[in-house]
Amino acid sequence: MVNYWDGHLDRVFAALSDPTRRAVLSRLARTRPLSVTALAEPFDLKLHTVMKHLDVLADAGLIRRAKTGRTVHVEIADGSLQPAVQWLQRQERFWSASLDRLAVYAEARERKAQDKDR
Amino acid sequence: MVNYWDGHLDRVFAALSDPTRRAVLSRLARTRPLSVTALAEPFDLKLHTVMKHLDVLADAGLIRRAKTGRTVHVEIADGSLQPAVQWLQRQERFWSASLDRLAVYAEARERKAQDKDR
Repeated sequence: MVNYWDGHLDRVFAALSDPTRRAVLSRLARTRPLSVTALAEPFDLKLHTVMKHLDVLADAGLIRRAKTGRTVHVEIADGSLQPAVQWLQRQERFWSASLDRLAVYAEARERKAQDKDR
Repeated sequence: MVNYWDGHLDRVFAALSDPTRRAVLSRLARTRPLSVTALAEPFDLKLHTVMKHLDVLADAGLIRRAKTGRTVHVEIADGSLQPAVQWLQRQERFWSASLDRLAVYAEARERKAQDKDR
């Protein structure tokens, strides 16, 4: 379970580490399903390269592809960015809590020092 | 500017794509600065390998290292996960807005069809 999950996050973050793949996701987030040709159009890349990026995004579960006749349509997979967001926010929550504990500790030390000086 | 930013997110997401590096960050988020030796202890890895992971995390700006005497301490860099969280949340916001627009369009079509049937 942990391994599956870890492997899934590996693939999601690796998929997001490329600017073209992030641009593809941004475009899909703003536009309803697009054909692969329409999606590839603004990028100065060969269709083959775009297809490879789409494979990486699909393997990470971030996009869905569907074939209608001879046209492949691509759309962002609903909620698929959530595990990444949750992982990041969990770290930030722990980090803030740990900073709070440090502040409490520093204040307690400060008070103790002042009490001594009296 | 865009390129710097893109390059920065590339490094952040690539750094997060490895389970050991995520485990290191998790540990640093929960514990105040740790020495490299203490940090490496729970991992079944050579110190050299841990150091390489720390280099990747530092290059992405996710951790800070400071040398006191002969000991190197490591801590998570405050707020450094924010750009990644913000990028992900921006996509989700656009995606939800785009789903809302689709729902409005679908409802409008539905009403038009019903009006015709009357």
